[in-house]
Amino acid sequence: MTAPAAEPIEHDVLGFLESAVNESPVEAMKPAAAPDTEIETPARQLVIINWSGEFDRVMPTLIMANAAAAMGYQTKVFTTFWGLLPFVKDQKRIVGENWMQKMLAFMQRPGISHLKTSKMNFFGMGPWMMGVLSRKYSIASPKELLEAAEALGVEFMPCQMTMDMFGLKREDMIDGLGAPVGAATVLELMTQPNTASLFI
Amino acid sequence: MTAPAAEPIEHDVLGFLESAVNESPVEAMKPAAAPDTEIETPARQLVIINWSGEFDRVMPTLIMANAAAAMGYQTKVFTTFWGLLPFVKDQKRIVGENWMQKMLAFMQRPGISHLKTSKMNFFGMGPWMMGVLSRKYSIASPKELLEAAEALGVEFMPCQMTMDMFGLKREDMIDGLGAPVGAATVLELMTQPNTASLFI
Amino acid sequence: MTAPAAEPIEHDVLGFLESAVNESPVEAMKPAAAPDTEIETPARQLVIINWSGEFDRVMPTLIMANAAAAMGYQTKVFTTFWGLLPFVKDQKRIVGENWMQKMLAFMQRPGISHLKTSKMNFFGMGPWMMGVLSRKYSIASPKELLEAAEALGVEFMPCQMTMDMFGLKREDMIDGLGAPVGAATVLELMTQPNTASLFI
Repeated sequence: MTAPAAEPIEHDVLGFLESAVNESPVEAMKPAAAPDTEIETPARQLVIINWSGEFDRVMPTLIMANAAAAMGYQTKVFTTFWGLLPFVKDQKRIVGENWMQKMLAFMQRPGISHLKTSKMNFFGMGPWMMGVLSRKYSIASPKELLEAAEALGVEFMPCQMTMDMFGLKREDMIDGLGAPVGAATVLELMTQPNTASLFI
Repeated sequence: MTAPAAEPIEHDVLGFLESAVNESPVEAMKPAAAPDTEIETPARQLVIINWSGEFDRVMPTLIMANAAAAMGYQTKVFTTFWGLLPFVKDQKRIVGENWMQKMLAFMQRPGISHLKTSKMNFFGMGPWMMGVLSRKYSIASPKELLEAAEALGVEFMPCQMTMDMFGLKREDMIDGLGAPVGAATVLELMTQPNTASLFI
Repeated sequence: MTAPAAEPIEHDVLGFLESAVNESPVEAMKPAAAPDTEIETPARQLVIINWSGEFDRVMPTLIMANAAAAMGYQTKVFTTFWGLLPFVKDQKRIVGENWMQKMLAFMQRPGISHLKTSKMNFFGMGPWMMGVLSRKYSIASPKELLEAAEALGVEFMPCQMTMDMFGLKREDMIDGLGAPVGAATVLELMTQPNTASLFI
């Protein structure tokens, strides 16, 4: 069905894949996040790939993560692509090392308190209205939910490749964030028994 | 990796989380939707978190749900956020209790027959063209698929928090919708064996 | 909770569902992609429903698929809806049989080298900037990743219904694509043990 090895793969792609996997294939079963410990099968586990940085998608990520952690599930959130920007410190305005990265960060203002909605943003009116409605119905804000999740032991794992692409450094990020990991760690976690994985 | 209990969580966040989980952590293993019955492990199960209210995402939700139910899988669809609006009765135009909720509902016209596409909507031309192409290739409409899913026993579970936020009442919703549930019910279902969970 | 068989389902919906499932319910356990072989339980498996055709969503699909295949996982990508268009040959400009399909294809230029970003596309400037940043940090292009995935044995399965709706023919598609399948095949794969399923 596929064309196995029709052409030799170029070397830089292989090198890229190796860094994406972040371990050699043989080593891959021991994820980078916990290289020295045996991975035990969790009773129940939730793994979320938090790809989006928008208010209306970060909210379900944080609500599900909090609920799972409160129920005693092992809970991991892999923050990647646009989904890494909410985990930049709120007070950071411009991040990145070159003008392209600075421009991307400028247009997608990072930080958990600066989320936009995916539709009806209207220069911030959408998030404001949702904030008002949320408070009215006692729904916590993204910032409160993030703090609760950290306190409940939810593990937030930033994507190494995304940090490189946006030129983000460790000191740009919030304190609660774990060490950067690659795809292998996430794949290993997602395929364990009693585990639900969501791409949000 | 995370900062466990660096600061005490404020009480309103805890209260919110409790309502999000919708059960106390100890009770959480018995989901709200079926409090009196033992949850038996299903042979095969599909759980969809239907977050989006757009034509091109509601269609895969309904097609997968119908196919799974037809194959004898236990099939549950948790309708949350924008994804709850298609399950408002078609004839309802303005729903909600205050002007903000009314405005949100007005701009995102609810009902299964009023879906917009996520791109190329062009004031309804996108959905119209897709409707024409669908009929040409005998693809059922969202409304037909919803009715088929109900008849096949797909369980649609509305998100309590979303109903509050949009100010939706039981009588606003279609008849086939089940009782509102919280995140704990969905997490419990998603982490069962032989279960596929999708966030759409 | 649902209304079982309140009204008889119309016959064309049933016919549609049958073609969606693509097999009779009894036969459904043997997926169309491998009708003659027994499905053995894979050690670890990744199943991605690639619904989106945008640069920033096709990238995680291809990166995860490559990483999983490199780790020895059985890896399947079901390409559906907008997510089928990147698998049209790059040199094809207009595909489809009638003016609606041609117009859809014209506006969503197909081919792996013509992806747009979901936000900040700016007439191609977003993808260009991401391409520059990707090269700077040795991240492979979508085209390179697709070729690597094929060589690593990732199985790409096009959605039959989408091919019909867009009027796509086998000769429009890249060589590495497998035979079109229906929802039953994907559901059967997704609910196997040690399997992670993602809707991207």
